[in-house]
Amino acid sequence: MTSSLRFGLIGTGRIGQVHAASVAAIPGTELSWVADPFIDGAAETARRYGGANVTADPLEAIRSGEVDGVIIASPTPTHVDLIDAAIDAGVPVLCEKPIDLDIVRVDALREKAASSSTPVVLGFNRRFDPHFADLRRRVADGEIGALEQLSITSRDPEAPPAAYIAVSGGIFRDMTIHDFDMARFFVPDIVEVTARGARQFDAAIAAAGDYDAVVVTLRGAGGELITITNSRHSAYGYDQRIEAFGPQGLLQVGNIPATQVRAYTGAQVEGLAPYRRFFLERYADAYRLELEAFADLIRGGEDRSPGFEDGRAALVLADAAVRSAAEGVSVAVDLSA
Amino acid sequence: MTSSLRFGLIGTGRIGQVHAASVAAIPGTELSWVADPFIDGAAETARRYGGANVTADPLEAIRSGEVDGVIIASPTPTHVDLIDAAIDAGVPVLCEKPIDLDIVRVDALREKAASSSTPVVLGFNRRFDPHFADLRRRVADGEIGALEQLSITSRDPEAPPAAYIAVSGGIFRDMTIHDFDMARFFVPDIVEVTARGARQFDAAIAAAGDYDAVVVTLRGAGGELITITNSRHSAYGYDQRIEAFGPQGLLQVGNIPATQVRAYTGAQVEGLAPYRRFFLERYADAYRLELEAFADLIRGGEDRSPGFEDGRAALVLADAAVRSAAEGVSVAVDLSA
Amino acid sequence: MTSSLRFGLIGTGRIGQVHAASVAAIPGTELSWVADPFIDGAAETARRYGGANVTADPLEAIRSGEVDGVIIASPTPTHVDLIDAAIDAGVPVLCEKPIDLDIVRVDALREKAASSSTPVVLGFNRRFDPHFADLRRRVADGEIGALEQLSITSRDPEAPPAAYIAVSGGIFRDMTIHDFDMARFFVPDIVEVTARGARQFDAAIAAAGDYDAVVVTLRGAGGELITITNSRHSAYGYDQRIEAFGPQGLLQVGNIPATQVRAYTGAQVEGLAPYRRFFLERYADAYRLELEAFADLIRGGEDRSPGFEDGRAALVLADAAVRSAAEGVSVAVDLSA
Amino acid sequence: MTSSLRFGLIGTGRIGQVHAASVAAIPGTELSWVADPFIDGAAETARRYGGANVTADPLEAIRSGEVDGVIIASPTPTHVDLIDAAIDAGVPVLCEKPIDLDIVRVDALREKAASSSTPVVLGFNRRFDPHFADLRRRVADGEIGALEQLSITSRDPEAPPAAYIAVSGGIFRDMTIHDFDMARFFVPDIVEVTARGARQFDAAIAAAGDYDAVVVTLRGAGGELITITNSRHSAYGYDQRIEAFGPQGLLQVGNIPATQVRAYTGAQVEGLAPYRRFFLERYADAYRLELEAFADLIRGGEDRSPGFEDGRAALVLADAAVRSAAEGVSVAVDLSA
Repeated sequence: MTSSLRFGLIGTGRIGQVHAASVAAIPGTELSWVADPFIDGAAETARRYGGANVTADPLEAIRSGEVDGVIIASPTPTHVDLIDAAIDAGVPVLCEKPIDLDIVRVDALREKAASSSTPVVLGFNRRFDPHFADLRRRVADGEIGALEQLSITSRDPEAPPAAYIAVSGGIFRDMTIHDFDMARFFVPDIVEVTARGARQFDAAIAAAGDYDAVVVTLRGAGGELITITNSRHSAYGYDQRIEAFGPQGLLQVGNIPATQVRAYTGAQVEGLAPYRRFFLERYADAYRLELEAFADLIRGGEDRSPGFEDGRAALVLADAAVRSAAEGVSVAVDLSA
Repeated sequence: MTSSLRFGLIGTGRIGQVHAASVAAIPGTELSWVADPFIDGAAETARRYGGANVTADPLEAIRSGEVDGVIIASPTPTHVDLIDAAIDAGVPVLCEKPIDLDIVRVDALREKAASSSTPVVLGFNRRFDPHFADLRRRVADGEIGALEQLSITSRDPEAPPAAYIAVSGGIFRDMTIHDFDMARFFVPDIVEVTARGARQFDAAIAAAGDYDAVVVTLRGAGGELITITNSRHSAYGYDQRIEAFGPQGLLQVGNIPATQVRAYTGAQVEGLAPYRRFFLERYADAYRLELEAFADLIRGGEDRSPGFEDGRAALVLADAAVRSAAEGVSVAVDLSA
Repeated sequence: MTSSLRFGLIGTGRIGQVHAASVAAIPGTELSWVADPFIDGAAETARRYGGANVTADPLEAIRSGEVDGVIIASPTPTHVDLIDAAIDAGVPVLCEKPIDLDIVRVDALREKAASSSTPVVLGFNRRFDPHFADLRRRVADGEIGALEQLSITSRDPEAPPAAYIAVSGGIFRDMTIHDFDMARFFVPDIVEVTARGARQFDAAIAAAGDYDAVVVTLRGAGGELITITNSRHSAYGYDQRIEAFGPQGLLQVGNIPATQVRAYTGAQVEGLAPYRRFFLERYADAYRLELEAFADLIRGGEDRSPGFEDGRAALVLADAAVRSAAEGVSVAVDLSA
Repeated sequence: MTSSLRFGLIGTGRIGQVHAASVAAIPGTELSWVADPFIDGAAETARRYGGANVTADPLEAIRSGEVDGVIIASPTPTHVDLIDAAIDAGVPVLCEKPIDLDIVRVDALREKAASSSTPVVLGFNRRFDPHFADLRRRVADGEIGALEQLSITSRDPEAPPAAYIAVSGGIFRDMTIHDFDMARFFVPDIVEVTARGARQFDAAIAAAGDYDAVVVTLRGAGGELITITNSRHSAYGYDQRIEAFGPQGLLQVGNIPATQVRAYTGAQVEGLAPYRRFFLERYADAYRLELEAFADLIRGGEDRSPGFEDGRAALVLADAAVRSAAEGVSVAVDLSA
């Protein structure tokens, strides 16, 4: 057995906890440094997962010489600088999405990321969901012929608090960005974005000038048509579905039941308990597999992870969607430019 | 187009109405005589479906010379004599199940029915259900290899009134008899019957010495194992399902939704409205197709209908089940004897 | 029982045959006149469904004084003049969609249709599908709260021949028009149309300048977002699905299995035979119920049918979609103007 | 955090490996001793899961004073003596089913096990399956009223090798025993056993005088009727389903799809990939949860595990089934005697 991979974790909020737990659960990986300006949070996380070093300064962790990879789960505005520092330190990095809300800042780092040999991986966890990954593999294997239409339905159980909305960058950059990446998981080269938004139920979101429901149509370079349907609420739990259509048929991933128990009563038949509540439950496997892929990459294995360019592409699509929704026009994009 | 087939209907209760409606709905068939000792019922039925002759005496209809076929939907004790009269008159007969509750009376007619060229058809309508018929065709086509196991689930929405229970002949002869025939639709030669009964919820049924829930295991001559699960009540509607299992797989017919609308709420997901309430709704197509097959047979077409021997076999199995349930032994049967 | 309603049928092609069969199957209705310039077709139809008068001239049937209603199933360019004549003759009319491919011709008849007391019904049969009608009833009953999103998937099994494409008016006016009406069945007041089209697989369609796959986003006056996904082919049969989403949940109608038999083998589990091939099979019930509603309306019953304004509105949306797809802009519409 | 629980593992075959992996995966548990007469297997297991002591003698592990619990996964004939030794040593024991194939040997240990304060847990892993556990919880909560009927379908993907059949004790003691325990999970007090067996496809099983397919009907003390349907093969994967029926409805657990991807083609629609192949995949969660419950029990937590009496009861039912199948009679049992 090889010696243990040592991870630094930056940020110990909700998503940081997920990654810490994954590191603990994956054989051959360990948490060696935990950084958070909220030092109590860092200390508590270190204690729970087994004795890592603690710091308020992320750069101390990155430059410690004691991390084989760093996981950036701190607030979005810190991402670019921390990726930059990790590249300088030669430490492979897994950064939560988005890279930044401002494409100018992303582009400023773009060439450096591209020319560096240090891996930069973006946290588009859904690519690692076993169901979606199996769907994509079967599409790639030609089971339905050339992909013609892709339908992505993605509804969060409930809207985030108004304070978060204000700094979120808007629904396209915050929520739809996952669906943009999922679209690109199937059709990497997107050439056109058409988006419509609505203010249907959340006064705080409307007051912030944001949408609580959107529909996006993407066109791929091969003529593929992709639709994304989003809502910021869903009474029946986290709604995460994909359909891929081609000349030989359709492949579909529906929602995952919490258990297989179906009920038959005088009121209703074949009913299941509501779906898993939100992303932590729905994508638990995906988060673990995402980190395993990152660990494999660090160890010199095959690169199966979305990278910096994928993170940038999703933001370019989000920016185009913002403009399309505002102006009522379809917006051409060139992701390779 | 050939001239219209003229049907006589004997008995205008619930099931008689179903047949009258089928005759009205099938092009090229008409109701020419309606017989019921309750003469007002006969008259009302004749009026509703277009001007047939009316009589209180079923023999008048059978012997009228104006019927090309007779449908016997009168009470069970009248069946044997009416079939007998129809054979004498050379009028093809479709008789509701069972032929009789007493195998001695059935056997008294057996040889005459077998040696006559007048068709005698038994009203085992479920054989004509498009779903079950498709299932059987696929089994017969070898899709799952040689049939090994057959599971029949059959639950009525609610128990009949106590008055009916008293004359029903008991659950095996009244309710399970349909399932015995369905078993024989797949495995005609049954050689052993094992039955267990229980008194679970209906005091009137218990008081009558009958069971309200039973489980039957049949063994076919080819070693097939068949299970029948019955209950006299079902909160979620009429429960009618079959599974056929063989070395190459399983074929299954589930219940039929009233509509395809599935609901997803905070309480439950994927739920349908309860199934069709009872046999009139569930087997509407089957009743019509049963009558079409009878009409085809009268016109000289292929015989696709269960006959007298099938009616007798179901009663033999029911009698064996009564004994097995009472004595706690498996009972060997020889349907060809 | 009231005396029989007499229908005139104009056009005896595929859809004309469907209506003739419905008239024959509905108690209390009969076919009294059949008109088709292809007089042999008219005669054959009259013979099959029982002795109607035959003419090559539709006006003769309309003005015969022997029809209580007329069904217009002739080619689209004849619709406006025939509706006009029926109004003049005071004969209620059920006209197949679309009214015309040219909104100018439709508008020329608009005021006359609106001010006449003669019912004009449009053949948007899908409104009468029991599954979709039940879905709409439950939405209207408030089961999911105020409707926020509606997703319509509609894929034909295969593209029509090139000769038909040339006169079809294009996919939006020929195929999507049914989905526009279905959208309006739920959200009558549509205020904006955004459409994207593609040429994915059919060279003849591309050569005609038409699309073989489209995605449309509609916005309702209440802020509803509606998506329509169309393709001119579908390997697994006619694909007809609707999802309605609101704050309390989701209601969904999936495709209708041909039979309930599910297969479990070493290759696949839970598989059904492909869906009903096309609209004649899928919407058989709907066509009959559509005609029953028309008959009820003629007899003075409640008006449950889509009318002239619904036919016009669908064409307005189709025209807006043509422009949106061509120019890459969202197009505002005012259906009440 | 409490100090780590130390487990001894006896037997390093297929099921022993499952338990070793569970110990490694559960925080706060470790493998301290591994025993197997095949010493290389013991050593390899110890190496893989982190440095436990190794011995060929299970008693050495049990008596080492260094195990807080022992897991018995050695061949069935060793179980009784090893449980006996563990009780003597005061070491809590989790023993794989069955306790023994001979009820006389089981009964010889019965009183000692009952009067000892050392926990003896039987490895009926299916009780810990989250789906079945949720089903039982909902039944116990009264969701369907008093349980009336329980249907257990259990089919292995393929028959074991002939060599195993010879020492298996027959299908009732080897395979159905899991279903007997599952029946008792819902209805602990079984009073009657009726079983029918067949030899349908496996010549080696027939040659050994065993059955390859069986159907069992159990009667509970409350009048419940329970059916078990077994086959030693299944083309579509491991078939593990349960239905619970009562006056208020039905609760059902179907098979678990390997992934949620459904395929729609010209050949079939709604098809999934075959189910998980066998028990190691299907019950992976259950094995881990079983061990967690055992660990909790050792630490003084609630006893949620099946015990010695459950292991004995399943064998009593198996013995009754052997006799019932052979003699064609229903067999009364008294599990409390």
